[in-house]
Amino acid sequence: MTAPSKVLSALDEGLPASLDRLFELLRIPSISTDPAYADACQKAAEWMAKDLQSIGFEASVRPTKGRPMVVAHYLGPDASAPHILFYGHYDVQPVDPLSLWENDPFDPKVRDADKDRKIITGRGSADDKGQLMTFVEACRAYKTAEGKLPLKVTILLEGEEESGSPSLKPFLEANAKELTADFALVCDTGMWDVETPAISVGLRGLVGEEITIKAADRDLHSGLYGGAAANPIHILTKVLADLRDANGRVTVPGFYDGVEETPPDVLKMWEGLSGRPEHFLTDIGLSVPSGEKGRSILELTWARPTAEVNGISGGYTGEGFKTVIPAQAFAKVSFRLVYKQDPEKIRAAFRAFVKERVPADCTVEFAPHGGSPAIQLPYDSPLLNAAREALDAEWPKKAVMIAMGGSIPIVGDFQKLLGMDSLLVGFGLPDDRVHSPNEKYELSSFHKGQRSWARILAALADAHAAGKLSGR
Amino acid sequence: MTAPSKVLSALDEGLPASLDRLFELLRIPSISTDPAYADACQKAAEWMAKDLQSIGFEASVRPTKGRPMVVAHYLGPDASAPHILFYGHYDVQPVDPLSLWENDPFDPKVRDADKDRKIITGRGSADDKGQLMTFVEACRAYKTAEGKLPLKVTILLEGEEESGSPSLKPFLEANAKELTADFALVCDTGMWDVETPAISVGLRGLVGEEITIKAADRDLHSGLYGGAAANPIHILTKVLADLRDANGRVTVPGFYDGVEETPPDVLKMWEGLSGRPEHFLTDIGLSVPSGEKGRSILELTWARPTAEVNGISGGYTGEGFKTVIPAQAFAKVSFRLVYKQDPEKIRAAFRAFVKERVPADCTVEFAPHGGSPAIQLPYDSPLLNAAREALDAEWPKKAVMIAMGGSIPIVGDFQKLLGMDSLLVGFGLPDDRVHSPNEKYELSSFHKGQRSWARILAALADAHAAGKLSGR
Repeated sequence: MTAPSKVLSALDEGLPASLDRLFELLRIPSISTDPAYADACQKAAEWMAKDLQSIGFEASVRPTKGRPMVVAHYLGPDASAPHILFYGHYDVQPVDPLSLWENDPFDPKVRDADKDRKIITGRGSADDKGQLMTFVEACRAYKTAEGKLPLKVTILLEGEEESGSPSLKPFLEANAKELTADFALVCDTGMWDVETPAISVGLRGLVGEEITIKAADRDLHSGLYGGAAANPIHILTKVLADLRDANGRVTVPGFYDGVEETPPDVLKMWEGLSGRPEHFLTDIGLSVPSGEKGRSILELTWARPTAEVNGISGGYTGEGFKTVIPAQAFAKVSFRLVYKQDPEKIRAAFRAFVKERVPADCTVEFAPHGGSPAIQLPYDSPLLNAAREALDAEWPKKAVMIAMGGSIPIVGDFQKLLGMDSLLVGFGLPDDRVHSPNEKYELSSFHKGQRSWARILAALADAHAAGKLSGR
Repeated sequence: MTAPSKVLSALDEGLPASLDRLFELLRIPSISTDPAYADACQKAAEWMAKDLQSIGFEASVRPTKGRPMVVAHYLGPDASAPHILFYGHYDVQPVDPLSLWENDPFDPKVRDADKDRKIITGRGSADDKGQLMTFVEACRAYKTAEGKLPLKVTILLEGEEESGSPSLKPFLEANAKELTADFALVCDTGMWDVETPAISVGLRGLVGEEITIKAADRDLHSGLYGGAAANPIHILTKVLADLRDANGRVTVPGFYDGVEETPPDVLKMWEGLSGRPEHFLTDIGLSVPSGEKGRSILELTWARPTAEVNGISGGYTGEGFKTVIPAQAFAKVSFRLVYKQDPEKIRAAFRAFVKERVPADCTVEFAPHGGSPAIQLPYDSPLLNAAREALDAEWPKKAVMIAMGGSIPIVGDFQKLLGMDSLLVGFGLPDDRVHSPNEKYELSSFHKGQRSWARILAALADAHAAGKLSGR
C-alpha cells in the first residue's frame, strides 16, 4: 500500500479547513517562558487534546510542574501493526520586539510572497505548530478517507520546548511504558530548500569539561616573580593549544576511536548540495574553514568531531593593565562527538591529557558538563529508506540525508530513556525566521508536509508488511 | 678622605637625638592617599624643610596639584665638587586594619626584638621616613663635625610615593635644571639580610600589549559552527603557547637582541646568597622553577627577560556552560626587559609574531601599555665601586650587588628626564612589614645606615678627588 490516493485527495480538498484549524491554534499565544501566558499554554494543550479526540485519539492533557503535556493514543484495530510515537511542541517563543512584526504575531494570515510562493505568517507557524499539524492533518485524512490509521500512533506534545523542557525527562521516566513505541517521529527540523526535503540522520553528541589550573597560593607581582613562578595562564594556553594539531585534528589520545568515515555516496550527496555551504562562512564574516583540513564545511559541521574552547578567563581582565601572575585560570572546553565516540571515555582521556601537561607543583580541577553520545540513524536503516521513498514521491527533488552539528535533547532522551530511534523529518526553511519577528511557514510546506506524512505512514506500514521493518 | 672619624663619632653620640627627630616625623600621620590627611602631609613637608634648613640647606616646600615636594640645596663652598641628588618620600601608607597593630602606628617606640635586636616601630619607620633620615643625619653629622658637606647635595622629598606619584613627573619636567645633578642616590630599598648590605644595580623594564583577536562578526553556536568556523580563543591560546619554547625561552624573533649574560663573578655572588632563594617558591606554594631552564631563581627574576600573560578572557565565563564560539578573545601580555632590550623594538616584534599566527579571515587589534627599558648600573661603575667600599667598611658582611625584578619609576624618570644614573642603597629588611600592620625598622639599620651614608659621601668625594668619578 502506497499512500492511498483517497487520503491525498482528502488532504488537497481539506487544505482550507486545515488552515482554519491551524489558525485557531496559532491565535493562542502559548508562550511558555513567560508565566503571564500559562493560561494560554493550558488553552493550547486543551485545544490539541480536543482536536485529537475528534480524530479518534484517546487524548488527555497531563499536568506537570510547568506547562502540561498532551498525550494521545490511537492503538487501532491491528495489534501487530508497528507503533510509532510522534513528538511536537505546542508552545512558542516570545514575540518581542513587537514593533518589528509586519503582522500581528497572533493573528495569522496567508500572504503572497516572492516567486508565486504563499506563506503563513505568525508566531509558531513554523516552530512548531505548523509542523506538528502537518502530521495531525495526515492522521485526520487517513481517518476520514480510510476510516483508520495504518499504524498504532501515540502523539506526545510538549509545552516547554522553548523554555528548556524542564518537565520532559521526568515525564518520560514516569510514563516510560505508556510512551515507548517502536520508534519516534519528530517534526521540528527543516528541508534543504523549498524543493528538497531532508531527513536529519545524525546529531552530534557533546561532552564538556571546565578545567581550572591552580599554581601559587596567591596572586603574584610579575616583577618580583616573573620568570620563576609558574603562570597558570601559560599552562592553560599550552594545554589548549596542544588540543589540535596543525591539520586541525584533535590530539587527545583515543579521541577518534570508533569514528567512522562518512560513506562516499553520502559525501557525494553533500557535495551536490548548494545554496548554503557557499555562504556558510561569508554570512558570519569569515572565509577560511577552520578545523580538519581536506574536508567540506558540511562534513566538518555534520560528521566530524571537534574540540572547542567555549570560555577562558584568568588574571586581570578589566580596563588598563595589572602586572599580575594569577593564582589560577580556567577554561570551558567542549567536544562535539560523532557516532560511536564514548563521551565518558573521551572525558577521561581529556583529563589525562591535561594532567600530563600540568607541572608537578601545580594542580588542576575538573568540573564535568554534559556527556551525551552522538545519534546516528544508520544510512541503510529500513525506517530511513521508507521515509526517503515517501518523500521522493512527494517533492520535486529527491530527499537528502543531512546531519545536525548540535544536539536535539528529545532525540537523546528517546534513545536513552525509551530505547527508541527517531526519524527527524520537517518542512521548515532556513528563512522561516523562527524565534524572530515575522516568523512564517511556507504554505507548500504545510500542504505537502501533510501529504508527506501520509506517504510516510503508508510506507512504514508497507515496510512492516514486507517484513522489512522490525520493531524494537 | 675616608669618612672622618669625627663624623662617625658624631653619629654614634647623636643617635638618641636623631631618634627624637625621627619620632617627631613619625608622629605626623602623612598618609598621602587619603585626603583627610592632606594637612598632615603639609605638616610633614614643613617639618622636613625646617629640619634641613637647620643643617644649612636652602630648603622649601613646593606646592603641586597634590601633596607638596620638599626641595633642599646645599651647594657648598667647592664649585668643582660633584653634585648628587638624594631622593626619598615623606608620605606613608594607610594603617588599616588598626586592630592588628601591637603599638599605635603614629606613636613610635624603640622595642626589644629577638636575638638582641632592637626595632623602631611605627608607620613609616622603614618606608620611607626612617630610611630618608639616615641620609639627613649623615649630612647633619658632617656639618656638625666638619662644618660642611663634602659634596654638593640636593634633596628631593616626595609626598605622593604611596599614591602613584602623579605630580612627580610634571615636577621633574618643570624643574629639570634645578634638580639635575651628576647622579642620584635613592634610599627606598633594602639589605640582603641584617648583616649584609645591598646595592640594587639592575631594574627590569617593562613593555605590555593587550591583544584582541576577532573572528566571526557575532558569537556562534558551537553545534552549528564548531569544526568549520575560526575560534578566536584557539588562535589566542596558540599565539600565547608559542611565546615560550620547551626550555622556557621567549620565541619572539629578536627578543634577546642586546641581552648580555650576567658576569660570572656576579652569578657566583648570587649563588652564595642564602636565606631567601630557598624559600622563594615554597613560600607561595610552589616548588618547580618556571621560565628558562638552567638558571637560578635569582638570575631568573633579576637578570633575565620574561614573557607573562597577565590576563586572558574570551567566550562564556559565568557559572555553568554555554556552547558558544565567541566573536573575540583578548589577552594582556607583558614582557619584563633586561638591559639593552629596546621596548619599542620588542613591541613591534611581538606584534609581527602575533599577526603571523592570525588566519587570513581574522583580525587582531593591539593596545599598548607601558614601555620602559631596563636600568643597569654597570658592574664596573666607579659610583658603584665607591659605594661598595663604603658599605664593606661599615657592615659585618660585604655588600652584595642585587637586582630587582620590577621597576622603580623614579629611577626611570631620573634616567629619562634628567639623564642621571641612580645608586640604590637602603637598609630595609624583608621582615619590615612595609605597607602592613606593625611596620618596623631595625635600630641597627637606622644607626649603621647613617654611618653608611657618611662613608658613601666620603668615598664619592675621594673618588672624585682621584679623578675616578666623572659627572654627567
